[in-house]
Amino acid sequence: MPALFQHPALAGILPAESGGIILPLDEARLAQAQARLDGLAKPRGSLGRLEEIALRLACLRHPCEVAPAVIFTCAADHGVAEELVSPFPQSVTRAMVENFLQGGAAINALTGAAGMDLAVVDAGCRGGAFADPSVINLRLGDGTANLAKGPAMDVETCLKGLASGCRLAGDWIARGWRCLGIGEMGIANTTPATALYCQLLGLAPKEAAGPGTGADPAMVARKAEVVARALHVNRDRLAAQTKQGLPDPVAALACLGGFEIALMAGIVLGSASLQVPVLVDGFIASAAYACAVLAAPACADYAFVAHASAEPGHQPALERLARLTPHPAWGRPLLHLGMRLGEGTGAAMAYPLLKGACALYANMASLADIGAAGPSA
Amino acid sequence: MPALFQHPALAGILPAESGGIILPLDEARLAQAQARLDGLAKPRGSLGRLEEIALRLACLRHPCEVAPAVIFTCAADHGVAEELVSPFPQSVTRAMVENFLQGGAAINALTGAAGMDLAVVDAGCRGGAFADPSVINLRLGDGTANLAKGPAMDVETCLKGLASGCRLAGDWIARGWRCLGIGEMGIANTTPATALYCQLLGLAPKEAAGPGTGADPAMVARKAEVVARALHVNRDRLAAQTKQGLPDPVAALACLGGFEIALMAGIVLGSASLQVPVLVDGFIASAAYACAVLAAPACADYAFVAHASAEPGHQPALERLARLTPHPAWGRPLLHLGMRLGEGTGAAMAYPLLKGACALYANMASLADIGAAGPSA
Repeated sequence: MPALFQHPALAGILPAESGGIILPLDEARLAQAQARLDGLAKPRGSLGRLEEIALRLACLRHPCEVAPAVIFTCAADHGVAEELVSPFPQSVTRAMVENFLQGGAAINALTGAAGMDLAVVDAGCRGGAFADPSVINLRLGDGTANLAKGPAMDVETCLKGLASGCRLAGDWIARGWRCLGIGEMGIANTTPATALYCQLLGLAPKEAAGPGTGADPAMVARKAEVVARALHVNRDRLAAQTKQGLPDPVAALACLGGFEIALMAGIVLGSASLQVPVLVDGFIASAAYACAVLAAPACADYAFVAHASAEPGHQPALERLARLTPHPAWGRPLLHLGMRLGEGTGAAMAYPLLKGACALYANMASLADIGAAGPSA
Repeated sequence: MPALFQHPALAGILPAESGGIILPLDEARLAQAQARLDGLAKPRGSLGRLEEIALRLACLRHPCEVAPAVIFTCAADHGVAEELVSPFPQSVTRAMVENFLQGGAAINALTGAAGMDLAVVDAGCRGGAFADPSVINLRLGDGTANLAKGPAMDVETCLKGLASGCRLAGDWIARGWRCLGIGEMGIANTTPATALYCQLLGLAPKEAAGPGTGADPAMVARKAEVVARALHVNRDRLAAQTKQGLPDPVAALACLGGFEIALMAGIVLGSASLQVPVLVDGFIASAAYACAVLAAPACADYAFVAHASAEPGHQPALERLARLTPHPAWGRPLLHLGMRLGEGTGAAMAYPLLKGACALYANMASLADIGAAGPSA
């Protein structure tokens, strides 16, 4: 996959400072950084994936700076909830946003523990805008339409979401943040994520559908059936392809996505265009990331897949997705903790690995500094 | 395996405040903590292993307190280095201790990033005591004897090491530390660790021996041969068994261990006896942990296996070891990052997971608090 492919829709969307293009990491800088890592006071490669992380972070716009960091927890509602694909009522989306604002959610606890900021973004929850001014209002509507009956949103709305996400990333980066993260809340949103994996990566609905927040086997079967129906009713629009003959990610996102998914994809693209690292949370955030990768594979150089979700379709999806990126090995998830909550919780728990990798690269002595002989072999 | 088994040698060694016994976590408290976790504002079990960690930490002497935390990086030399089982010269042990003191090692960077303290312990490096008063001097000798020719140390020295480790843990806990970690430095110490896994857990030398810091295949084969020889020459002493018919861990540690391994085993036992959590680093630290588990299986309730090392024998050893503990699932390593450096680096990277788990348990609202309906299923 040529790393410089870029979906034409991105031209007018990426932050102006990026020059309108997402560049891959510079190979010469990567080689220099690798040489420095290999000379540090440790056996070569002995820090495992921390070295891979350090290598990438050393070649960013702000080398080895990942603080301050913020997780954007993007919330929205989904018309497909009416298909009974979640064990929770739709009202929980809004209740959980209120809980984020009160500080009582898992993501509050984990961003606090990890030393990250949390920004709550309303991408389109049902019931209108939130009164609390700390909510970032980027509403794309009052919940999506039911993707099993037609497009979840129109293409204009989808592009607006991508642009808003890009702008959000650009604004926070301009104000000094050095690492972004994406997470989400939206009852029923494993269904659009599953549909996106099927459409973009060729997974079968039965392979990609899982229990999400706790669906029983009958509900999982219904979810797979709803996804198959969504792919069918949207088939004409979904026939659009990129120049490379891959499924068009904008069409997929509009037909099968969600408002929070469009925003998260935009955040990834915006962050990558400014060469700032972005942590991708679990099953749903990764679907947004998949849209971003299909729109501009080079964005993967700036993305860190935080964890492998307990959702059975996540790892197969990540494996297929990694193959579309410039450095497939970098796309392996960092943590394997059986998490399946979303909100950005996995991203928060992966962030300390980035901090550790930066500290290694910046602070370690070299073998020469300590006067130690290298291996005699 | 009865959780209350305890090796008779521990009676005079465990801190007085412990009552001389390592008690397993209380089942009634565990059930209460599980009920609280299940009522928090999230789908049941959706935080995966973070919930398992939170559950355990909630039932400690100081529930959900893991700060301040310290990693004890214990350094020592090994007579078996003369068998050419490491690509690095023995002088690197001492050079790396100096590097720890200068702040230039990986463990300095990673404890700093994780918000942990670092304590450097000389368990018996060659060349005499360090002049720097910040080194904790618990020297058991000037390097062990070559375990391929006879016991690495005598039983008295081994017991002294266990007692010193227990006392060190007890002292730091008395001074307010709420989480300990064990890591090590010692050229050639994958060989004693491998020998301990073979003796205590029944691994074959060829299965347990790996490249360590970078041995080539010929060196790995030699390491396996050295381990087989060590098991043979020490066979009479190693025939000792516990009351349960398992290999005697004190005899194993004396014949096949190392000074830093004895100290680390003591730290685990001391920490567990005071019901304070202890993070176990990689391949060599886990061998110390194995000695502790065979001496008192209940200590596993307080131990967190930080990561799966890249060393091929580590995971098979951890799997066998977990089966000897009261809660085998808790013995699965937390991180899988392909690290193989030691020093405590994996323990430092796992510590943020403990901080996150504490924050979840302490700070999350309940489903009832937020007025959200539970799953309708």
